[in-house]
Amino acid sequence: MPPAPPLLLRHPLSLLLLRGPRTPPPLLRRVPSFSPPPPLVLLRQQRCLCVASAQLAGPVVAPGAGVDEAVAGFVTGKRKATEVAHAVWRSIVRKGDTVVDATCGNGNDTFALLKMVADETGRGRVYGMDIQDAAIDSTSSFLKMAVDSQEMELVKLFPICHSRMEEIVPKDSLVRLVAFNLGYLPGGDKTIVTVPKTTELALQAASRIVSSGGLISILVYIGHLGGRDELAIVESFASSLPVDTWVSCKFEMINRPVAPVLVLLHKK
Amino acid sequence: MPPAPPLLLRHPLSLLLLRGPRTPPPLLRRVPSFSPPPPLVLLRQQRCLCVASAQLAGPVVAPGAGVDEAVAGFVTGKRKATEVAHAVWRSIVRKGDTVVDATCGNGNDTFALLKMVADETGRGRVYGMDIQDAAIDSTSSFLKMAVDSQEMELVKLFPICHSRMEEIVPKDSLVRLVAFNLGYLPGGDKTIVTVPKTTELALQAASRIVSSGGLISILVYIGHLGGRDELAIVESFASSLPVDTWVSCKFEMINRPVAPVLVLLHKK
Repeated sequence: MPPAPPLLLRHPLSLLLLRGPRTPPPLLRRVPSFSPPPPLVLLRQQRCLCVASAQLAGPVVAPGAGVDEAVAGFVTGKRKATEVAHAVWRSIVRKGDTVVDATCGNGNDTFALLKMVADETGRGRVYGMDIQDAAIDSTSSFLKMAVDSQEMELVKLFPICHSRMEEIVPKDSLVRLVAFNLGYLPGGDKTIVTVPKTTELALQAASRIVSSGGLISILVYIGHLGGRDELAIVESFASSLPVDTWVSCKFEMINRPVAPVLVLLHKK
Repeated sequence: MPPAPPLLLRHPLSLLLLRGPRTPPPLLRRVPSFSPPPPLVLLRQQRCLCVASAQLAGPVVAPGAGVDEAVAGFVTGKRKATEVAHAVWRSIVRKGDTVVDATCGNGNDTFALLKMVADETGRGRVYGMDIQDAAIDSTSSFLKMAVDSQEMELVKLFPICHSRMEEIVPKDSLVRLVAFNLGYLPGGDKTIVTVPKTTELALQAASRIVSSGGLISILVYIGHLGGRDELAIVESFASSLPVDTWVSCKFEMINRPVAPVLVLLHKK
Protein backbone atom coordinates (compact mmCIF):
# COMPACT_ATOMS: atom_id res chain seq x y z
CA MET A 1 0.00 0.00 0.00
CA PRO A 2 1.45 3.36 -0.91
CA PRO A 3 2.12 5.76 1.99
CA ALA A 4 -0.71 8.11 2.93
CA PRO A 5 -0.45 11.49 1.22
CA PRO A 6 0.86 14.29 3.43
CA LEU A 7 -1.72 16.39 5.19
CA LEU A 8 -1.06 19.32 2.87
CA LEU A 9 -2.24 17.31 -0.08
CA ARG A 10 -5.55 16.32 1.50
CA HIS A 11 -6.90 19.82 1.00
CA PRO A 12 -8.59 20.14 -2.41
CA LEU A 13 -6.89 23.42 -3.28
CA SER A 14 -3.53 21.94 -2.52
CA LEU A 15 -4.03 19.44 -5.30
CA LEU A 16 -3.63 22.23 -7.82
CA LEU A 17 0.01 21.42 -8.30
CA LEU A 18 1.64 22.23 -11.59
CA ARG A 19 3.88 19.32 -12.42
CA GLY A 20 5.75 18.48 -15.56
CA PRO A 21 6.78 14.99 -16.62
CA ARG A 22 8.81 13.03 -14.06
CA THR A 23 12.30 13.51 -15.36
CA PRO A 24 15.55 13.54 -13.36
CA PRO A 25 16.18 16.91 -11.72
CA PRO A 26 17.84 19.14 -14.30
CA LEU A 27 21.27 20.57 -13.68
CA LEU A 28 20.07 23.93 -14.88
CA ARG A 29 16.71 25.41 -14.20
CA ARG A 30 14.30 25.29 -17.06
CA VAL A 31 14.01 28.41 -19.16
CA PRO A 32 10.39 29.34 -19.78
CA SER A 33 9.36 28.72 -23.34
CA PHE A 34 6.96 31.66 -23.43
CA SER A 35 4.45 29.33 -25.01
CA PRO A 36 1.04 29.19 -23.30
CA PRO A 37 1.31 27.77 -19.76
CA PRO A 38 1.02 24.00 -19.59
CA PRO A 39 -2.27 22.65 -18.34
CA LEU A 40 -2.69 22.12 -14.63
CA VAL A 41 -2.11 18.53 -13.67
CA LEU A 42 -3.65 17.13 -10.52
CA LEU A 43 -1.10 15.41 -8.37
CA ARG A 44 -2.84 12.76 -6.36
CA GLN A 45 0.10 11.18 -4.64
CA GLN A 46 3.34 12.49 -3.26
CA ARG A 47 6.39 10.76 -1.92
CA CYS A 48 6.63 11.26 1.83
CA LEU A 49 10.18 11.83 3.00
CA CYS A 50 11.20 9.68 5.94
CA VAL A 51 13.28 12.24 7.78
CA ALA A 52 12.41 14.36 10.74
CA SER A 53 11.08 17.79 9.88
CA ALA A 54 13.51 19.47 12.27
CA GLN A 55 16.37 17.89 10.39
CA LEU A 56 14.90 19.00 7.12
CA ALA A 57 14.23 22.51 8.10
CA GLY A 58 17.32 23.53 10.00
CA PRO A 59 17.14 26.20 12.67
CA VAL A 60 13.97 28.23 12.75
CA VAL A 61 14.26 31.91 13.58
CA ALA A 62 12.71 32.82 16.91
CA PRO A 63 9.26 34.22 16.12
CA GLY A 64 9.89 37.38 18.11
CA ALA A 65 13.26 38.39 16.66
CA GLY A 66 12.92 41.98 15.47
CA VAL A 67 15.06 43.92 13.01
CA ASP A 68 16.76 45.48 16.01
CA GLU A 69 18.06 42.24 17.45
CA ALA A 70 18.72 40.66 14.05
CA VAL A 71 20.79 43.52 12.63
CA ALA A 72 22.71 44.18 15.85
CA GLY A 73 23.35 40.42 15.93
CA PHE A 74 24.39 40.41 12.26
CA VAL A 75 26.87 43.22 12.84
CA THR A 76 28.38 41.41 15.83
CA GLY A 77 28.44 38.02 14.10
CA LYS A 78 25.79 36.45 16.30
CA ARG A 79 22.99 36.29 13.74
CA LYS A 80 22.87 35.26 10.12
CA ALA A 81 21.75 37.18 7.05
CA THR A 82 18.68 34.96 6.87
CA GLU A 83 17.63 36.23 10.30
CA VAL A 84 17.99 39.82 9.12
CA ALA A 85 15.83 38.92 6.13
CA HIS A 86 13.13 37.36 8.31
CA ALA A 87 13.17 40.33 10.66
CA VAL A 88 12.76 42.80 7.78
CA TRP A 89 9.94 40.67 6.36
CA ARG A 90 8.19 40.85 9.72
CA SER A 91 8.41 44.62 9.65
CA ILE A 92 6.65 44.71 6.27
CA VAL A 93 4.33 41.69 6.03
CA ARG A 94 0.93 41.86 7.74
CA LYS A 95 -1.65 39.25 8.70
CA GLY A 96 -3.84 38.40 5.73
CA ASP A 97 -1.19 39.31 3.15
CA THR A 98 -0.32 37.34 0.04
CA VAL A 99 3.36 36.39 -0.17
CA VAL A 100 5.50 34.24 -2.44
CA ASP A 101 8.33 31.87 -1.55
CA ALA A 102 10.07 31.60 -4.90
CA THR A 103 12.49 28.91 -3.73
CA CYS A 104 10.93 26.70 -1.08
CA GLY A 105 14.04 24.62 -0.41
CA ASN A 106 13.41 22.80 2.83
CA GLY A 107 10.45 24.98 3.77
CA ASN A 108 12.06 27.14 6.42
CA ASP A 109 11.08 30.39 4.73
CA THR A 110 7.67 29.02 3.70
CA PHE A 111 6.99 28.25 7.35
CA ALA A 112 8.19 31.67 8.51
CA LEU A 113 6.06 33.41 5.89
CA LEU A 114 3.01 31.35 6.78
CA LYS A 115 3.31 32.39 10.41
CA MET A 116 3.45 36.04 9.31
CA VAL A 117 0.28 36.00 7.21
CA ALA A 118 -1.93 33.44 8.96
CA ASP A 119 -4.75 34.54 11.21
CA GLU A 120 -8.30 33.47 11.99
CA THR A 121 -9.72 35.28 8.94
CA GLY A 122 -7.99 32.83 6.62
CA ARG A 123 -7.17 35.60 4.11
CA GLY A 124 -3.41 35.13 4.08
CA ARG A 125 -1.78 33.15 1.27
CA VAL A 126 1.68 31.72 0.75
CA TYR A 127 2.48 30.66 -2.80
CA GLY A 128 5.56 28.46 -2.71
CA MET A 129 7.50 26.94 -5.57
CA ASP A 130 10.68 25.04 -6.27
CA ILE A 131 11.78 23.29 -9.41
CA GLN A 132 13.03 20.29 -7.43
CA ASP A 133 10.45 17.71 -6.41
CA ALA A 134 12.56 16.91 -3.36
CA ALA A 135 12.24 20.48 -2.16
CA ILE A 136 8.47 20.52 -2.52
CA ASP A 137 8.28 17.16 -0.74
CA SER A 138 10.54 18.42 2.01
CA THR A 139 8.56 21.64 2.46
CA SER A 140 5.29 19.77 2.48
CA SER A 141 6.50 17.26 5.07
CA PHE A 142 7.91 19.98 7.29
CA LEU A 143 4.75 22.07 7.20
CA LYS A 144 2.60 19.01 7.86
CA MET A 145 4.42 18.51 11.13
CA ALA A 146 4.84 22.16 12.07
CA VAL A 147 1.47 23.82 11.49
CA ASP A 148 -2.20 22.98 11.90
CA SER A 149 -4.61 22.12 9.12
CA GLN A 150 -6.17 25.59 9.03
CA GLU A 151 -2.80 27.21 8.41
CA MET A 152 -1.91 24.51 5.93
CA GLU A 153 -4.87 25.54 3.79
CA LEU A 154 -3.23 28.90 3.23
CA VAL A 155 -0.19 27.38 1.52
CA LYS A 156 -0.10 26.51 -2.17
CA LEU A 157 2.96 24.59 -3.33
CA PHE A 158 4.07 24.17 -6.94
CA PRO A 159 7.02 22.19 -8.34
CA ILE A 160 7.90 24.73 -10.99
CA CYS A 161 10.73 27.09 -11.85
CA HIS A 162 10.57 30.43 -10.03
CA SER A 163 10.60 32.24 -13.36
CA ARG A 164 7.03 31.01 -13.81
CA MET A 165 5.58 32.53 -10.65
CA GLU A 166 3.09 34.62 -12.61
CA GLU A 167 1.37 31.42 -13.72
CA ILE A 168 0.43 30.44 -10.18
CA VAL A 169 -0.19 33.68 -8.31
CA PRO A 170 -3.71 34.97 -9.06
CA LYS A 171 -3.59 38.11 -11.14
CA ASP A 172 -5.63 40.21 -8.72
CA SER A 173 -3.35 39.43 -5.74
CA LEU A 174 -1.67 42.26 -3.87
CA VAL A 175 1.66 40.53 -3.28
CA ARG A 176 3.50 42.00 -0.28
CA LEU A 177 6.66 39.93 -0.48
CA VAL A 178 8.53 37.67 -2.88
CA ALA A 179 11.36 35.80 -1.18
CA PHE A 180 14.28 34.09 -2.91
CA ASN A 181 17.00 31.84 -1.50
CA LEU A 182 19.43 31.39 -4.36
CA GLY A 183 21.88 28.51 -4.54
CA TYR A 184 21.36 24.83 -3.88
CA LEU A 185 18.92 22.88 -1.73
CA PRO A 186 20.48 22.46 1.74
CA GLY A 187 21.03 18.77 2.31
CA GLY A 188 20.22 18.07 -1.34
CA ASP A 189 22.24 17.63 -4.51
CA LYS A 190 24.67 20.54 -4.60
CA THR A 191 25.10 20.23 -8.36
CA ILE A 192 21.49 21.35 -8.81
CA VAL A 193 21.54 25.08 -8.39
CA THR A 194 19.56 28.12 -9.38
CA VAL A 195 21.16 29.73 -12.41
CA PRO A 196 21.48 33.32 -13.61
CA LYS A 197 19.23 33.13 -16.66
CA THR A 198 16.08 31.91 -14.93
CA THR A 199 16.87 33.89 -11.80
CA GLU A 200 16.89 37.04 -13.89
CA LEU A 201 13.53 36.11 -15.41
CA ALA A 202 12.20 35.32 -11.94
CA LEU A 203 13.33 38.69 -10.60
CA GLN A 204 11.63 40.42 -13.51
CA ALA A 205 8.45 38.47 -12.77
CA ALA A 206 8.69 39.31 -9.06
CA SER A 207 9.08 43.00 -9.84
CA ARG A 208 5.85 42.84 -11.87
CA ILE A 209 3.72 41.08 -9.28
CA VAL A 210 4.91 42.72 -6.06
CA SER A 211 2.63 45.53 -4.98
CA SER A 212 3.52 49.08 -3.99
CA GLY A 213 4.88 49.00 -0.44
CA GLY A 214 6.05 45.44 -0.94
CA LEU A 215 9.45 43.80 -0.99
CA ILE A 216 11.55 41.39 -3.02
CA SER A 217 14.04 39.67 -0.72
CA ILE A 218 16.95 37.77 -2.25
CA LEU A 219 19.44 35.81 -0.16
CA VAL A 220 22.26 34.77 -2.50
CA TYR A 221 24.50 31.90 -1.48
CA ILE A 222 27.81 32.31 -3.28
CA GLY A 223 29.98 29.50 -1.93
CA HIS A 224 29.31 27.14 -4.84
CA LEU A 225 30.47 27.18 -8.45
CA GLY A 226 28.52 29.88 -10.28
CA GLY A 227 27.34 31.53 -7.08
CA ARG A 228 29.21 34.75 -7.82
CA ASP A 229 27.81 34.85 -11.36
CA GLU A 230 24.32 34.65 -9.96
CA LEU A 231 25.08 37.42 -7.46
CA ALA A 232 26.29 39.56 -10.36
CA ILE A 233 22.96 39.06 -12.13
CA VAL A 234 21.03 39.93 -8.97
CA GLU A 235 23.12 43.07 -8.41
CA SER A 236 22.79 44.09 -12.03
CA PHE A 237 19.01 43.71 -11.84
CA ALA A 238 18.80 45.51 -8.48
CA SER A 239 20.95 48.42 -9.60
CA SER A 240 18.91 48.84 -12.79
CA LEU A 241 15.66 49.47 -10.90
CA PRO A 242 14.53 53.11 -11.20
CA VAL A 243 15.27 55.06 -8.05
CA ASP A 244 11.94 56.88 -8.13
CA THR A 245 9.97 53.67 -7.67
CA TRP A 246 12.44 51.27 -6.00
CA VAL A 247 14.86 51.19 -3.09
CA SER A 248 17.55 48.56 -3.72
CA CYS A 249 19.92 47.79 -0.88
CA LYS A 250 22.47 45.13 -0.06
CA PHE A 251 23.79 43.74 3.22
CA GLU A 252 26.92 41.63 3.12
CA MET A 253 29.83 40.32 5.13
CA ILE A 254 33.07 41.44 3.55
CA ASN A 255 35.70 39.46 5.40
CA ARG A 256 33.91 36.15 4.77
CA PRO A 257 34.12 35.66 0.99
CA VAL A 258 31.51 32.90 0.84
CA ALA A 259 28.98 34.35 3.28
CA PRO A 260 25.52 34.79 1.72
CA VAL A 261 24.58 38.26 0.51
CA LEU A 262 21.17 39.79 1.25
CA VAL A 263 19.61 42.04 -1.40
CA LEU A 264 16.35 43.78 -0.55
CA LEU A 265 14.24 45.54 -3.19
CA HIS A 266 11.42 47.72 -1.90
CA LYS A 267 8.75 48.94 -4.29
CA LYS A 268 7.71 52.45 -3.25
CA MET B 1 37.81 93.17 21.65
CA PRO B 2 38.04 89.61 20.38
CA PRO B 3 34.89 87.49 20.70
CA ALA B 4 34.51 85.47 23.90
CA PRO B 5 35.82 81.92 23.55
CA PRO B 6 33.13 79.26 23.14
CA LEU B 7 31.96 77.55 26.29
CA LEU B 8 33.80 74.37 25.41
CA LEU B 9 37.12 76.16 25.57
CA ARG B 10 36.49 77.60 29.01
CA HIS B 11 37.04 74.22 30.61
CA PRO B 12 40.73 73.65 31.45
CA LEU B 13 40.84 70.17 29.94
CA SER B 14 39.38 71.43 26.72
CA LEU B 15 42.39 73.65 26.27
CA LEU B 16 44.50 70.61 25.55
CA LEU B 17 44.09 71.08 21.86
CA LEU B 18 46.79 69.90 19.54
CA ARG B 19 47.25 72.55 16.93
CA GLY B 20 49.85 72.97 14.25
CA PRO B 21 50.82 76.22 12.65
CA ARG B 22 47.99 78.25 11.10
CA THR B 23 48.33 77.33 7.48
CA PRO B 24 45.59 77.16 4.86
CA PRO B 25 43.64 73.90 5.04
CA PRO B 26 45.56 71.29 3.05
CA LEU B 27 43.98 69.68 0.03
CA LEU B 28 45.17 66.30 1.23
CA ARG B 29 45.21 65.12 4.79
CA ARG B 30 48.58 65.16 6.44
CA VAL B 31 50.43 61.89 6.50
CA PRO B 32 51.87 61.17 9.93
CA SER B 33 55.63 61.52 10.02
CA PHE B 34 56.07 58.75 12.59
CA SER B 35 58.43 61.07 14.42
CA PRO B 36 57.63 61.63 18.11
CA PRO B 37 54.29 63.40 18.57
CA PRO B 38 54.53 67.17 18.52
CA PRO B 39 54.24 68.94 21.87
CA LEU B 40 50.80 69.90 23.05
CA VAL B 41 50.03 73.50 22.32
CA LEU B 42 47.51 75.37 24.42
CA LEU B 43 44.94 77.10 22.30
CA ARG B 44 43.77 80.17 24.18
CA GLN B 45 41.50 81.65 21.62
CA GLN B 46 39.22 80.24 19.02
CA ARG B 47 37.29 81.84 16.23
CA CYS B 48 33.61 81.76 16.99
CA LEU B 49 31.48 80.92 13.96
CA CYS B 50 28.58 83.26 13.43
CA VAL B 51 26.09 80.70 12.16
CA ALA B 52 23.32 78.94 13.97
CA SER B 53 24.27 75.55 15.31
CA ALA B 54 21.18 73.94 13.79
CA GLN B 55 22.33 75.11 10.40
CA LEU B 56 25.80 73.78 11.06
CA ALA B 57 24.76 70.45 12.34
CA GLY B 58 22.06 69.39 9.96
CA PRO B 59 19.32 67.01 11.05
CA VAL B 60 19.88 65.23 14.31
CA VAL B 61 18.72 61.63 14.58
CA ALA B 62 15.81 61.16 16.97
CA PRO B 63 17.34 59.95 20.25
CA GLY B 64 14.99 56.99 20.47
CA ALA B 65 15.44 55.55 16.97
CA GLY B 66 16.39 51.89 17.36
CA VAL B 67 18.07 49.57 14.87
CA ASP B 68 14.61 48.17 14.14
CA GLU B 69 13.15 51.44 12.94
CA ALA B 70 16.36 52.61 11.29
CA VAL B 71 16.98 49.48 9.22
CA ALA B 72 13.33 48.99 8.25
CA GLY B 73 13.38 52.68 7.28
CA PHE B 74 16.64 52.26 5.35
CA VAL B 75 15.22 49.34 3.39
CA THR B 76 12.09 51.30 2.51
CA GLY B 77 14.00 54.48 1.69
CA LYS B 78 12.67 56.48 4.63
CA ARG B 79 15.88 56.61 6.66
CA LYS B 80 19.48 57.29 5.77
CA ALA B 81 22.58 55.16 6.28
CA THR B 82 23.72 57.58 8.97
CA GLU B 83 20.60 56.73 10.96
CA VAL B 84 21.35 53.03 10.66
CA ALA B 85 24.86 53.79 11.91
CA HIS B 86 23.59 55.75 14.90
CA ALA B 87 21.08 53.03 15.75
CA VAL B 88 23.77 50.34 15.66
CA TRP B 89 26.03 52.52 17.82
CA ARG B 90 23.23 52.80 20.36
CA SER B 91 22.96 49.04 20.51
CA ILE B 92 26.66 48.75 21.37
CA VAL B 93 27.73 51.90 23.24
CA ARG B 94 26.95 52.15 26.97
CA LYS B 95 26.89 55.03 29.44
CA GLY B 96 30.38 55.74 30.72
CA ASP B 97 32.11 54.38 27.59
CA THR B 98 35.03 55.95 25.79
CA VAL B 99 34.35 56.61 22.10
CA VAL B 100 36.14 58.36 19.25
CA ASP B 101 34.74 60.58 16.52
CA ALA B 102 37.53 60.39 13.97
CA THR B 103 35.98 63.00 11.67
CA CYS B 104 34.00 65.58 13.63
CA GLY B 105 32.71 67.45 10.60
CA ASN B 106 29.89 69.65 11.84
CA GLY B 107 29.59 67.81 15.14
CA ASN B 108 26.47 65.79 14.47
CA ASP B 109 28.10 62.47 15.31
CA THR B 110 30.07 63.98 18.20
CA PHE B 111 26.80 65.16 19.69
CA ALA B 112 25.10 61.80 19.17
CA LEU B 113 28.04 59.97 20.73
CA LEU B 114 28.13 62.33 23.70
CA LYS B 115 24.47 61.63 24.40
CA MET B 116 25.23 57.88 24.35
CA VAL B 117 28.06 57.95 26.88
CA ALA B 118 27.14 60.83 29.19
CA ASP B 119 25.62 60.17 32.59
CA GLU B 120 25.88 61.57 36.09
CA THR B 121 29.04 59.57 36.86
CA GLY B 122 31.02 61.66 34.38
CA ARG B 123 33.02 58.62 33.24
CA GLY B 124 32.12 58.78 29.57
CA ARG B 125 34.54 60.37 27.10
CA VAL B 126 34.27 61.47 23.49
CA TYR B 127 37.55 62.11 21.73
CA GLY B 128 36.84 64.08 18.57
CA MET B 129 39.20 65.15 15.84
CA ASP B 130 39.21 66.73 12.41
CA ILE B 131 42.08 68.07 10.38
CA GLN B 132 40.06 71.13 9.39
CA ASP B 133 39.95 73.99 11.86
CA ALA B 134 36.53 74.95 10.52
CA ALA B 135 35.18 71.52 11.48
CA ILE B 136 36.50 71.74 15.03
CA ASP B 137 35.09 75.26 15.34
CA SER B 138 31.76 74.12 13.98
CA THR B 139 31.58 71.13 16.31
CA SER B 140 32.58 73.24 19.28
CA SER B 141 29.95 75.87 18.51
CA PHE B 142 27.25 73.30 17.98
CA LEU B 143 27.99 71.45 21.21
CA LYS B 144 28.13 74.70 23.15
CA MET B 145 24.56 75.39 22.15
CA ALA B 146 23.26 71.83 22.35
CA VAL B 147 24.56 70.37 25.61
CA ASP B 148 25.18 71.52 29.17
CA SER B 149 28.55 72.28 30.73
CA GLN B 150 28.79 68.95 32.55
CA GLU B 151 28.38 67.03 29.30
CA MET B 152 30.75 69.41 27.55
CA GLU B 153 33.49 68.38 29.96
CA LEU B 154 33.34 64.87 28.57
CA VAL B 155 34.32 65.98 25.04
CA LYS B 156 37.93 66.49 23.96
CA LEU B 157 38.38 68.04 20.52
CA PHE B 158 41.62 68.02 18.52
CA PRO B 159 42.35 69.63 15.14
CA ILE B 160 44.48 66.77 13.87
CA CYS B 161 44.40 64.12 11.17
CA HIS B 162 42.43 61.01 12.09
CA SER B 163 45.49 58.88 11.41
CA ARG B 164 46.95 60.31 14.63
CA MET B 165 44.15 59.23 16.96
CA GLU B 166 46.53 57.14 19.08
CA GLU B 167 48.28 60.33 20.14
CA ILE B 168 45.20 61.73 21.81
CA VAL B 169 43.30 58.76 23.22
CA PRO B 170 44.86 57.67 26.55
CA LYS B 171 46.60 54.33 26.21
CA ASP B 172 44.60 52.63 28.97
CA SER B 173 41.22 53.55 27.47
CA LEU B 174 38.77 50.80 26.58
CA VAL B 175 37.47 52.32 23.36
CA ARG B 176 34.00 51.02 22.48
CA LEU B 177 33.54 52.81 19.18
CA VAL B 178 35.53 54.68 16.56
CA ALA B 179 33.31 56.50 14.07
CA PHE B 180 34.33 57.81 10.66
CA ASN B 181 32.44 59.97 8.18
CA LEU B 182 34.61 59.95 5.08
CA GLY B 183 34.35 62.59 2.40
CA TYR B 184 34.13 66.35 2.69
CA LEU B 185 32.85 68.68 5.40
CA PRO B 186 29.13 69.31 4.74
CA GLY B 187 28.73 72.99 3.99
CA GLY B 188 32.50 73.37 3.76
CA ASP B 189 35.07 73.36 0.98
CA LYS B 190 34.29 70.26 -1.11
CA THR B 191 37.82 70.18 -2.48
CA ILE B 192 39.11 69.31 0.99
CA VAL B 193 38.40 65.65 1.42
CA THR B 194 39.65 62.69 3.37
CA VAL B 195 42.03 60.67 1.23
CA PRO B 196 42.83 56.97 0.95
CA LYS B 197 46.36 57.02 2.35
CA THR B 198 45.62 58.63 5.70
CA THR B 199 42.24 56.93 5.92
CA GLU B 200 44.02 53.58 5.68
CA LEU B 201 46.42 54.61 8.45
CA ALA B 202 43.47 55.84 10.52
CA LEU B 203 41.64 52.55 10.10
CA GLN B 204 44.74 50.67 11.19
CA ALA B 205 45.00 52.91 14.24
CA ALA B 206 41.31 52.42 15.02
CA SER B 207 41.69 48.66 14.82
CA ARG B 208 44.48 48.86 17.40
CA ILE B 209 42.66 51.04 19.92
CA VAL B 210 39.14 49.63 19.75
CA SER B 211 38.48 47.11 22.48
CA SER B 212 37.03 43.63 22.23
CA GLY B 213 33.26 43.95 21.80
CA GLY B 214 33.72 47.34 20.18
CA LEU B 215 33.00 48.71 16.74
CA ILE B 216 34.59 50.75 13.97
CA SER B 217 31.87 52.49 11.98
CA ILE B 218 32.72 54.02 8.61
CA LEU B 219 30.22 55.97 6.55
CA VAL B 220 31.82 56.56 3.15
CA TYR B 221 30.47 59.35 0.97
CA ILE B 222 31.32 58.52 -2.63
CA GLY B 223 29.68 61.27 -4.65
CA HIS B 224 32.84 63.37 -4.96
CA LEU B 225 36.00 62.90 -7.00
CA GLY B 226 38.07 60.18 -5.32
CA GLY B 227 35.18 58.95 -3.22
CA ARG B 228 35.16 55.53 -4.89
CA ASP B 229 38.92 55.19 -4.41
CA GLU B 230 38.48 55.80 -0.72
CA LEU B 231 35.67 53.24 -0.55
CA ALA B 232 37.97 50.74 -2.25
CA ILE B 233 40.58 51.30 0.47
CA VAL B 234 37.98 50.89 3.21
CA GLU B 235 36.66 47.68 1.65
CA SER B 236 40.16 46.34 1.16
CA PHE B 237 40.98 47.01 4.80
CA ALA B 238 37.67 45.57 6.03
CA SER B 239 37.97 42.42 3.97
CA SER B 240 41.53 41.83 5.18
CA LEU B 241 40.52 41.64 8.84
CA PRO B 242 40.80 38.09 10.20
CA VAL B 243 37.43 36.40 10.47
CA ASP B 244 38.23 34.83 13.84
CA THR B 245 38.54 38.23 15.53
CA TRP B 246 36.49 40.58 13.34
CA VAL B 247 33.06 40.77 11.73
CA SER B 248 33.17 43.12 8.73
CA CYS B 249 29.89 43.99 7.09
CA LYS B 250 28.63 46.52 4.58
CA PHE B 251 25.23 48.12 3.98
CA GLU B 252 24.68 49.97 0.74
CA MET B 253 22.09 51.25 -1.68
CA ILE B 254 22.67 49.72 -5.09
CA ASN B 255 20.37 51.68 -7.35
CA ARG B 256 21.71 55.03 -6.13
CA PRO B 257 25.31 55.12 -7.32
CA VAL B 258 26.36 58.04 -5.11
CA ALA B 259 24.56 57.06 -1.92
CA PRO B 260 26.91 56.73 1.07
CA VAL B 261 28.06 53.23 2.01
CA LEU B 262 28.12 52.04 5.62
CA VAL B 263 30.89 49.66 6.68
CA LEU B 264 30.80 48.26 10.22
CA LEU B 265 33.75 46.40 11.74
CA HIS B 266 33.07 44.59 15.00
CA LYS B 267 35.98 43.34 17.09
CA LYS B 268 34.97 40.04 18.69
